[in-house]
Amino acid sequence: MSSALQLDIAGFLADYWQQQPLLIKQGWPEFADPLAPELLAGLALEEGVDSRVIEQRQQQWLVTHGPFEDYEAFGEEDWTLLVQSVNEWFPEVQQLLEPFRFLPDWRTDDVMISFAVPGGSVGPHLDQYDVFIIQGLGRRHWQVGNRLSDAAEHRPHPDLKQLQQSFTPCIDAVLETGDILYIPAGCPHHGVALEPSLNYSVGFRAPNTAELAAQVADMLLATEQQFPRYQDPHADSYGPAWQVSAPQLTHLKQFLLDHLRGDTQLDTALLQVMSQSKRPLPQPDHEIDAAELLAYSGTDMLLCRTPGARILVGPDAVLYANGEIYAVDSEVMDFARQLAALWQDQPLC
Amino acid sequence: MSSALQLDIAGFLADYWQQQPLLIKQGWPEFADPLAPELLAGLALEEGVDSRVIEQRQQQWLVTHGPFEDYEAFGEEDWTLLVQSVNEWFPEVQQLLEPFRFLPDWRTDDVMISFAVPGGSVGPHLDQYDVFIIQGLGRRHWQVGNRLSDAAEHRPHPDLKQLQQSFTPCIDAVLETGDILYIPAGCPHHGVALEPSLNYSVGFRAPNTAELAAQVADMLLATEQQFPRYQDPHADSYGPAWQVSAPQLTHLKQFLLDHLRGDTQLDTALLQVMSQSKRPLPQPDHEIDAAELLAYSGTDMLLCRTPGARILVGPDAVLYANGEIYAVDSEVMDFARQLAALWQDQPLC
Ligand SMILES: O=C(O)CCC(=O)C(=O)O
Ligand SMILES: O=C(O)CCC(=O)C(=O)O
Ligand SMILES: [Co+2]
Ligand SMILES: [Co+2]
Repeated sequence: MSSALQLDIAGFLADYWQQQPLLIKQGWPEFADPLAPELLAGLALEEGVDSRVIEQRQQQWLVTHGPFEDYEAFGEEDWTLLVQSVNEWFPEVQQLLEPFRFLPDWRTDDVMISFAVPGGSVGPHLDQYDVFIIQGLGRRHWQVGNRLSDAAEHRPHPDLKQLQQSFTPCIDAVLETGDILYIPAGCPHHGVALEPSLNYSVGFRAPNTAELAAQVADMLLATEQQFPRYQDPHADSYGPAWQVSAPQLTHLKQFLLDHLRGDTQLDTALLQVMSQSKRPLPQPDHEIDAAELLAYSGTDMLLCRTPGARILVGPDAVLYANGEIYAVDSEVMDFARQLAALWQDQPLC
Repeated sequence: MSSALQLDIAGFLADYWQQQPLLIKQGWPEFADPLAPELLAGLALEEGVDSRVIEQRQQQWLVTHGPFEDYEAFGEEDWTLLVQSVNEWFPEVQQLLEPFRFLPDWRTDDVMISFAVPGGSVGPHLDQYDVFIIQGLGRRHWQVGNRLSDAAEHRPHPDLKQLQQSFTPCIDAVLETGDILYIPAGCPHHGVALEPSLNYSVGFRAPNTAELAAQVADMLLATEQQFPRYQDPHADSYGPAWQVSAPQLTHLKQFLLDHLRGDTQLDTALLQVMSQSKRPLPQPDHEIDAAELLAYSGTDMLLCRTPGARILVGPDAVLYANGEIYAVDSEVMDFARQLAALWQDQPLC
């Protein structure tokens, strides 16, 4: 498979991914904007689309959430329109994710697109996500620093987190169409548009322990399964009722962690969580079964992946899609793998 | 401390608690009903009180949820009124828990009281809770079996789980005032009132792994703390994007479990969960601070525990109450321990 990217992937994984920022000049040499600023602006007029405009006006930061009615009030300078998960709305934008599939699908978050007019910026900040920013239309000046372990953040506006202190950039460059900036989670960055410009943020999520625990627990609770219940029989005395002793606390902790570690239920729940889509996906009008699907083979029917869908195959050769488990017969497992691998529309063979 | 119970506690813990049922004839010899059936029936007229009436009518099971307006429709036979957490409404009922404080406070669930007319029953069933049923007014015929590992349950009514098969009782007795029946979680039981009668169910909760994980995760998420984020740098290749290999899954699982095990955050969250009250407690009109409290000492002011409150001291000598953490100075730690131990109203010394 020839990649759209000009990138030594093995070298990138070894030295940069999740470690340090990298500017990949002309990382996507043939890059062509999959949409025009007008189309992005039009999308942000729609209900259900997560969008915002960030403006800087006389040292003040303003945030306005979409849906918008028009953009006239924002003027010619110093604002950015950001639209989340554009890949779920435009299949062409979903295709931008494909060259990044040298990274695991379950880590993919979404493609956020920003359109900025000259001077437009969201300010210096850091994210909990790893991101590749592809420069489309126009040019932006980007500065990126190395990971900060304890960056002080402040909120110049309730909906905007920025860095309190300035940072020393290790990358300071004007991005042109086809340039890619890789920014690991936790690295400060600051971009300012030099002219009307589009940036495509291909984001990768990384759950923290608390988020992952909550998602897994919800998944476990949603199953109809039985789980072991806490027990501590044969204690000869518990001591004062109100006192939780160190051994008692340890016993409870072991109960929780040992069972989670030992049960395949946790593996299954993790795979379900990994396959959860970012937002609920549109439901088909009509569910298709294997027999019906087979009846279409040989026709000119196209297989298209729902943008935003996450389809994984676990080590147990079970298919996980959008939080659900599909135990597939071994004869159709090859087809299931094809479905999981599919990104571009393909004829059904 | 002399106990109201006639029970060899060490023997009970060694041989029965969480293991097998036990009938303790005259286990509470001086037992006097803390409330009359009329008062219980009156409580179930109130908004916010969790109550239900279960009736058997011509082989049909009916369930009606409170609040009730009156009880006339139910007639003279074959129904039971059950009211949950009566200890939270009547301090006298909260006092019924005290003799059971040879068991840890965090395991306490509530005191459920049932009033049954002749023939009244909820049917044969099992619970996920350990329970002591104290016979108050009247007599009830109880049968209890040994733990069933895979009991088939059915729902003769959407709000009623019963056992599908009959069970072989290992206890078959008519309970009289002052008798106590101990039923471990998972043991089938069936009680039928012989005459108008009151039963007090002192219940003990035991979370299962999924419930505990969900509670702990919610607690962790509610803190303002930072948690480690998933990382897997230095992979030379991830393989196909859609494939979750066994080592990848193991890595994610280790990330979750190893951090949880290693961080004191989990200990703290567990202690918070252990101290959570069953339902939100009434909030004080006015919060009292240590200085104000000290100013009352020597007066005839009484210290009263809010019924339903859970106050624990952790191995870290920190006070946990109702899900909150109270880091107490070492000088007031003795007083904090007194508060945690307090059950009956006591003068402030
Ligand atoms: O597009 C922008 O201006 C901001 C992008 C960004 O900060 C990000 O993707 O993390
Ligand atoms: O009071 C009753 O009739 C039912 C009590 C019961 O089943 C229990 O406490 O588990
Ligand atoms: Co950012
Ligand atoms: Co029961």
